[in-house]
Amino acid sequence: MDFSLSDKTKRLQQELTTFMEEHVYPSEAIYKQQLNQQASRWSRVPPVMEELKQKAKEKGLWNLFLPDSTYGAGLSNLEYAMLCEIMGRSMIGPEVFNCSAPDTGNIEVLARYGTEEQKQQWLNPLLAGEIRSCFSMTEPDVASSDATNIQASITRDGDEYIINGKKWWSSGAGDPRCKIAIFMGKSDTSAPKHQQQSMILVPLDSSGVTIERMLPVFGYDHAPHGHAEITYNNVRVPAANMIWDEGKGFAIAQGRLGPGRIHHCMRTIGTAERALEALCKRVQERAAFGQKLEEQGVIQQWIAESRMEIEQSRLLTLKAAYMMDTVGNKEAKAEIAMIKVVAPNMALKVIDRAIQAFGGAGVSDDFVLAEQWANIRTLRLADGPDEVHQRQIARLELKKYL
Amino acid sequence: MDFSLSDKTKRLQQELTTFMEEHVYPSEAIYKQQLNQQASRWSRVPPVMEELKQKAKEKGLWNLFLPDSTYGAGLSNLEYAMLCEIMGRSMIGPEVFNCSAPDTGNIEVLARYGTEEQKQQWLNPLLAGEIRSCFSMTEPDVASSDATNIQASITRDGDEYIINGKKWWSSGAGDPRCKIAIFMGKSDTSAPKHQQQSMILVPLDSSGVTIERMLPVFGYDHAPHGHAEITYNNVRVPAANMIWDEGKGFAIAQGRLGPGRIHHCMRTIGTAERALEALCKRVQERAAFGQKLEEQGVIQQWIAESRMEIEQSRLLTLKAAYMMDTVGNKEAKAEIAMIKVVAPNMALKVIDRAIQAFGGAGVSDDFVLAEQWANIRTLRLADGPDEVHQRQIARLELKKYL
Amino acid sequence: MDFSLSDKTKRLQQELTTFMEEHVYPSEAIYKQQLNQQASRWSRVPPVMEELKQKAKEKGLWNLFLPDSTYGAGLSNLEYAMLCEIMGRSMIGPEVFNCSAPDTGNIEVLARYGTEEQKQQWLNPLLAGEIRSCFSMTEPDVASSDATNIQASITRDGDEYIINGKKWWSSGAGDPRCKIAIFMGKSDTSAPKHQQQSMILVPLDSSGVTIERMLPVFGYDHAPHGHAEITYNNVRVPAANMIWDEGKGFAIAQGRLGPGRIHHCMRTIGTAERALEALCKRVQERAAFGQKLEEQGVIQQWIAESRMEIEQSRLLTLKAAYMMDTVGNKEAKAEIAMIKVVAPNMALKVIDRAIQAFGGAGVSDDFVLAEQWANIRTLRLADGPDEVHQRQIARLELKKYL
Amino acid sequence: MDFSLSDKTKRLQQELTTFMEEHVYPSEAIYKQQLNQQASRWSRVPPVMEELKQKAKEKGLWNLFLPDSTYGAGLSNLEYAMLCEIMGRSMIGPEVFNCSAPDTGNIEVLARYGTEEQKQQWLNPLLAGEIRSCFSMTEPDVASSDATNIQASITRDGDEYIINGKKWWSSGAGDPRCKIAIFMGKSDTSAPKHQQQSMILVPLDSSGVTIERMLPVFGYDHAPHGHAEITYNNVRVPAANMIWDEGKGFAIAQGRLGPGRIHHCMRTIGTAERALEALCKRVQERAAFGQKLEEQGVIQQWIAESRMEIEQSRLLTLKAAYMMDTVGNKEAKAEIAMIKVVAPNMALKVIDRAIQAFGGAGVSDDFVLAEQWANIRTLRLADGPDEVHQRQIARLELKKYL
Repeated sequence: MDFSLSDKTKRLQQELTTFMEEHVYPSEAIYKQQLNQQASRWSRVPPVMEELKQKAKEKGLWNLFLPDSTYGAGLSNLEYAMLCEIMGRSMIGPEVFNCSAPDTGNIEVLARYGTEEQKQQWLNPLLAGEIRSCFSMTEPDVASSDATNIQASITRDGDEYIINGKKWWSSGAGDPRCKIAIFMGKSDTSAPKHQQQSMILVPLDSSGVTIERMLPVFGYDHAPHGHAEITYNNVRVPAANMIWDEGKGFAIAQGRLGPGRIHHCMRTIGTAERALEALCKRVQERAAFGQKLEEQGVIQQWIAESRMEIEQSRLLTLKAAYMMDTVGNKEAKAEIAMIKVVAPNMALKVIDRAIQAFGGAGVSDDFVLAEQWANIRTLRLADGPDEVHQRQIARLELKKYL
Repeated sequence: MDFSLSDKTKRLQQELTTFMEEHVYPSEAIYKQQLNQQASRWSRVPPVMEELKQKAKEKGLWNLFLPDSTYGAGLSNLEYAMLCEIMGRSMIGPEVFNCSAPDTGNIEVLARYGTEEQKQQWLNPLLAGEIRSCFSMTEPDVASSDATNIQASITRDGDEYIINGKKWWSSGAGDPRCKIAIFMGKSDTSAPKHQQQSMILVPLDSSGVTIERMLPVFGYDHAPHGHAEITYNNVRVPAANMIWDEGKGFAIAQGRLGPGRIHHCMRTIGTAERALEALCKRVQERAAFGQKLEEQGVIQQWIAESRMEIEQSRLLTLKAAYMMDTVGNKEAKAEIAMIKVVAPNMALKVIDRAIQAFGGAGVSDDFVLAEQWANIRTLRLADGPDEVHQRQIARLELKKYL
Repeated sequence: MDFSLSDKTKRLQQELTTFMEEHVYPSEAIYKQQLNQQASRWSRVPPVMEELKQKAKEKGLWNLFLPDSTYGAGLSNLEYAMLCEIMGRSMIGPEVFNCSAPDTGNIEVLARYGTEEQKQQWLNPLLAGEIRSCFSMTEPDVASSDATNIQASITRDGDEYIINGKKWWSSGAGDPRCKIAIFMGKSDTSAPKHQQQSMILVPLDSSGVTIERMLPVFGYDHAPHGHAEITYNNVRVPAANMIWDEGKGFAIAQGRLGPGRIHHCMRTIGTAERALEALCKRVQERAAFGQKLEEQGVIQQWIAESRMEIEQSRLLTLKAAYMMDTVGNKEAKAEIAMIKVVAPNMALKVIDRAIQAFGGAGVSDDFVLAEQWANIRTLRLADGPDEVHQRQIARLELKKYL
Repeated sequence: MDFSLSDKTKRLQQELTTFMEEHVYPSEAIYKQQLNQQASRWSRVPPVMEELKQKAKEKGLWNLFLPDSTYGAGLSNLEYAMLCEIMGRSMIGPEVFNCSAPDTGNIEVLARYGTEEQKQQWLNPLLAGEIRSCFSMTEPDVASSDATNIQASITRDGDEYIINGKKWWSSGAGDPRCKIAIFMGKSDTSAPKHQQQSMILVPLDSSGVTIERMLPVFGYDHAPHGHAEITYNNVRVPAANMIWDEGKGFAIAQGRLGPGRIHHCMRTIGTAERALEALCKRVQERAAFGQKLEEQGVIQQWIAESRMEIEQSRLLTLKAAYMMDTVGNKEAKAEIAMIKVVAPNMALKVIDRAIQAFGGAGVSDDFVLAEQWANIRTLRLADGPDEVHQRQIARLELKKYL
């Protein structure tokens, strides 16, 4: 196992860090301010974002996530992991470098399985950061952590498919630039259990697509990105919009999730690092009961526990990335499941300690801690709750002794 | 130790439960809807609230918290605790019965220490539910869990006091009916440490009082109640507005906090009960991986742990209430500190498990779970963080062996 | 719910406390010394024990556990709970007052279900503290937390029963005074699931009874009491030794466990109290890194957490006892299951903290902490592991919503 | 960071694994049996141990821990870490390969700081596995986690030093082959705080050395190795026995602890792996309540949590080893402190889950789980309690922001 960095990655790491310090962190408050000054938080993306994207693109800090070197940076999962952590330190970070979910996953799907036509129409503008995309998989009416529960349908009708279904947590659909959804539904309920599902491209301006509402997360609207509940009511799309092939939906989902989890986890680790930094700085400033907070044993224990948990999570995530690079996503599935559980739970603990150290300021929006906590709390549910992954890890472990 | 209920309390318990089922729970959605339909969430209190209050008053379910039988129901802390839990099951519950913070604490202060004039002007309309009040103690610039850190000032000038200071977490100040603040500041920085503070009544429409902003809690604005940051800039109030006497601020605060903590904790237990109920019902409805959720071992363990934690917290809170009734707040201070730590931490665990069982629905506003979680998270900070209370509990324990 | 003490119980509480201080605590070291000076730790019970028993009997502090006033003190479960905690503060405490397991449970079975002849032969000498008894239920080869898994057999043959089976964790069988076992086995494997089991009296000197070995608990032999593995090989006993009736084994077991759990839990709480006392005293004596241990925040947090956990466990145990007294063991089954989980887990945490504060001394036998920890660790398994009880609690909770 | 294995290490890893399976695991029961059959458990080392050592030596699996290639295998910390884990799977493993504490640490001290004479007299027979050694540092009367608290003295008197002090936890002193102690005491109480201590060689057969008793660990005597309390009463040794130089005791201790911690942690990880293996196999064999244990959700969660915790601990330990190899022990001090906390706490959780799955068998000596638990519990105290290391980690973290 070799976590050494290539010179290229070291250079990118340095450039990213500098870019974050010079451009991203100072823009966080501006972004928020621009968002709040708009008539509606949903009307447009704060202009500072496009400025930052332009700067990042000019520096070559763009599409770093994409292992395919035709379309992206051609970095390994391990190499990108180290960079992704840095972007994750800011909530506006990943988008600046065109590395934000769910576009990264959607781009990978298109790069790997898309037809030339699909690539030209959707992949290219996504890679250019001109449009954004969403992923319509989760459904409100069933436990959709079990993909066989999915109720949405994709029915062939001549040269078209008819799309029906009710989806939610279609993240990013609030963004005015969001033009396309990857939609998952059942195309053949009589096929074997994991070949019933297909994925298909659905332009959001299609007739029959209705964004019913944007779902809040612990009171946050996450505008302008947002999490949409969408009904697809007899939506017709050309048959050429099918991705890969009918019945490949489950297979694509499996492939899509591996790198996506590495990305989520590394961003989460970046978030935790920043929270720990905030905690340390805060306790160096204040005193109570005649002792500086930084000298109080309980607070020191919080810092030590946080440091130990962050270190361990990072190493495990790097191991998962390394395994994906060397033995493939399938062999790495236990490790991928592990980090999906470990990283968010770790970060929630670290951030919660920071909130506690900040007092009332910690739960407000004077600092980003509460917002980060809420954000990461969703990761214990997104792409399957912790319990589904723990079950898988256990089954893989037990198999060793059969 | 006797936790038996008097016949009167049993009757009230039954009446409250019925009232909640018939009137309060069905009004939760209406309240929310009315709030969102207003031009601003802050412009007025949803009309359904005043209707509910009127009904509760007619049934005699009013001011139950007040042990003083001249002004209130004359119930003991223990008796009220059992009722308070029921109200706490709904976020709009306590106000319906004129039993919501911070008015309950402020009313107690006025009933106990107020002059006749103060009572007539402020206590009576508060008891009638015509106006509301806030409590301006916490300050943004210092660790105000240590009351000796307070920087606000109350300076005598002839027949008036001049008030200066920057306060935040003045909860309830967003409510258009909120007319009066109890303000804590230092009136004599040369006095002994715990006699420097005074509490004084400041009408919110006084010149020099500015509500700077409303603080969100994990993205929730808590409108129309809200948590205000207020600057008091050379505010002049009549000398007669002083409560009790100069230098009594710390003593009043100590007295105010005891019953307030019982109330918070019992409401918190009610909240946890309702979250557990929601969890149980949800897992009876859904299935994944070929097994009903209610039959899955991990979920059963969540339910069992929740039940055990709730039971224990409730008993400890009742014990604290019983001790306050029988040996007094001072002798009960270890127990009061304990429940302040135990109840919110317990409820956060219970609600978090419910959120996890609900999946994406749990973090959204389709259910009240996320909002409850955020609300209770603040209780680990309000009136002093957990760590301050743990410190006090330890010191009282160690004293036994001196 | 009324946890008030009768005057009689208050008096007993005071007398017990005094007796512990004057006689029991000072005898702990003597007991250990006498045990170690013997040729074998199993050869006899240290003489100091019989001296203590004589003194306790003279003071009337004897058989306090037995609710039946013909044979014992006639106290309620609640009353005895408060006394049992005091005895549990010392590992040699309960036996001094003839209140130690498994005799207490066995005595209750005989008092409730025994024939006159059984009572005369076995109950009377047990009540007099002249002999001791064991309980042979658990089996090494199956998960016997599920009673339907039991493999031992009790077969009628004329005027006798033939007993066969392999049992372990027959605690107390190492004691030279142990004369009688209550043996559980299946008498009719064709009967309904919970009527297949019977309980029968088997004198330990019967032909075919072999104590194979004494099981250690984390390195402790628990001599002279001990935990025996016993084979019963075609053991013949008179038919009159059957308890109650054939097929009643499961029913007796259920009835036997309720009070037994209260006793175990209250003793466990006493143990935790003593560990917390030891911790407090230790940290008042030592210093490291220029600060007294008692002033260090982490240690204060240990003390506070311990106090909060002990208080809550005690209240829940008292509630369970109160319910058994007022609504019966069956209605109290959820609460009984809860304390079975709560009390040992609580005590393990408290003792572990004390061990940590004691350093190397904590894991040695200079203090009783390590021995107590090991002892209580077994309670998370005895009478069913935590997980079986959690499952039952969850099922009872879920039933509320059917 | 590169955790790749050299071909040599891969080969050693394979050979060790084979040796463990062929020779060590099958000898565990024999070792125990031989020990128990002796008149005293302390009289001699079970003969099977010397046979195993002979075999290991012949295979070249000997002194692998020693980075110095003149005397040992010349492996890096990282390389040895991977091997050490394998040895740690068996409690008798490390000694077989002459890699057991405290000899490893003592050998390193002699190899690095010893004079030629000291090496000839003590290092050579230790390397040959002919004698064993102990380390006398901890004292019963002070919190010796703070080295400045040490009370023992080393006083120059002509050509000799006079040694006085009371030490305990001198592990290995029970072994009849144990001939030499490295003794730490103060040689100059007027020197700067960390230059007062010296280390000196004291033959155990010196006049004035008395082994007062052997300390048990949770009831285990750890014979024939054992943990001794030793008084050193005016013991005279030649001045040439001083190690390095007067006043270097603290410096030697610091250097000694780094690799020792890596070793302890890797052995601990091996122990945890074996406990998880035992847990998995056990739950595949048994059933309760109509379901195989391996299919029960709670047990699956135990397995998943254990796997996640083990993986993370191992990676962090490897990182610490890698840093020691590349940037030195001093730069790695935060990581070394972290693993000292992380590994034992992790293993205690894993083993405790295994115990719970084994039921009564888990706390007995039918399986090694209880003994392993007790053993590792001491590691949360040895070489300083968790809290001391957490404090150091926090201080190093806070320094980043000064």
